[in-house]
Amino acid sequence: MSHTLTALPLTADRFAAFGDVLETSAQTKQSMNSARFDRFSDLAKLDFGPEESGHPSISIARGKTPTAMPYRLDMLERHPDGSQAFMPLSRFPFVVVVAPAGEEVIVEEIAAFITNGKQGINYHKGVWHMPMIAMKEGQEFLIVDRAVSGGNCDEQYLGDPILIEL
Amino acid sequence: MSHTLTALPLTADRFAAFGDVLETSAQTKQSMNSARFDRFSDLAKLDFGPEESGHPSISIARGKTPTAMPYRLDMLERHPDGSQAFMPLSRFPFVVVVAPAGEEVIVEEIAAFITNGKQGINYHKGVWHMPMIAMKEGQEFLIVDRAVSGGNCDEQYLGDPILIEL
Repeated sequence: MSHTLTALPLTADRFAAFGDVLETSAQTKQSMNSARFDRFSDLAKLDFGPEESGHPSISIARGKTPTAMPYRLDMLERHPDGSQAFMPLSRFPFVVVVAPAGEEVIVEEIAAFITNGKQGINYHKGVWHMPMIAMKEGQEFLIVDRAVSGGNCDEQYLGDPILIEL
Repeated sequence: MSHTLTALPLTADRFAAFGDVLETSAQTKQSMNSARFDRFSDLAKLDFGPEESGHPSISIARGKTPTAMPYRLDMLERHPDGSQAFMPLSRFPFVVVVAPAGEEVIVEEIAAFITNGKQGINYHKGVWHMPMIAMKEGQEFLIVDRAVSGGNCDEQYLGDPILIEL
């Protein structure tokens, strides 16, 4: 029997066990370039893993096939060798589903969030997460993660799917 | 006597000596997450310098005081220990002025570009560049660069300012 999980509004506190929220805040505000900009610095704990077998990279992902909500979650993945950041390149909310880093997904600890349209996220190394789903065609993310020649992705299927709703 | 430099449309070829253009292209296109996304991978050569004294970081910069064009360029800066990427978080063009990496700015080799509104850029380590100017208040960039406790910025003032025009 599947159960249902309602996505909560994403906040830095709620997400702290899983990663970072990429957003501006009063705490991180500095001045930059002769006060032409406010700069909100060092928002994410980045980890690109062992240098021998990979390197830090920037990519763009563009939504192609949107996924309708509620979403039937049956698999989570993790990147054991590095963090992974997603930043929306225009304003749109997106759904984030995570479970704590560890050898296996602990189903009772799966958490679902919805961003506020401006936020990005950075999964810490090894944190289980739902593969990103597209909300609308054409929406783009900047991704900052580890590029590898070999694998850096484990998948775990759930015995009972979870219905993620907004 | 100051001279004038007209910003050219930014292309990957024109920018290759200075860094990377962060944009989608047919060459870098892959499929991701069960074809829910197109992914344009590994768009930038990132370098975060020696680990002992710094670390990779993500920041957000928000335009505060816009700069009118033409712009009187009298200084370029470089980050000797790392690359620096700027990606606009909504669609807007911005001006990029660069000179090749080296001990000093070679004034004859200064080049000016204007982005197409979607493009981001990544300055390679040590490339001289104009400090980012804001075109409009509130416009935001994601920055991916090296966070340091000490310095990672050299400045060079020009004997004769250059007028950068669109």
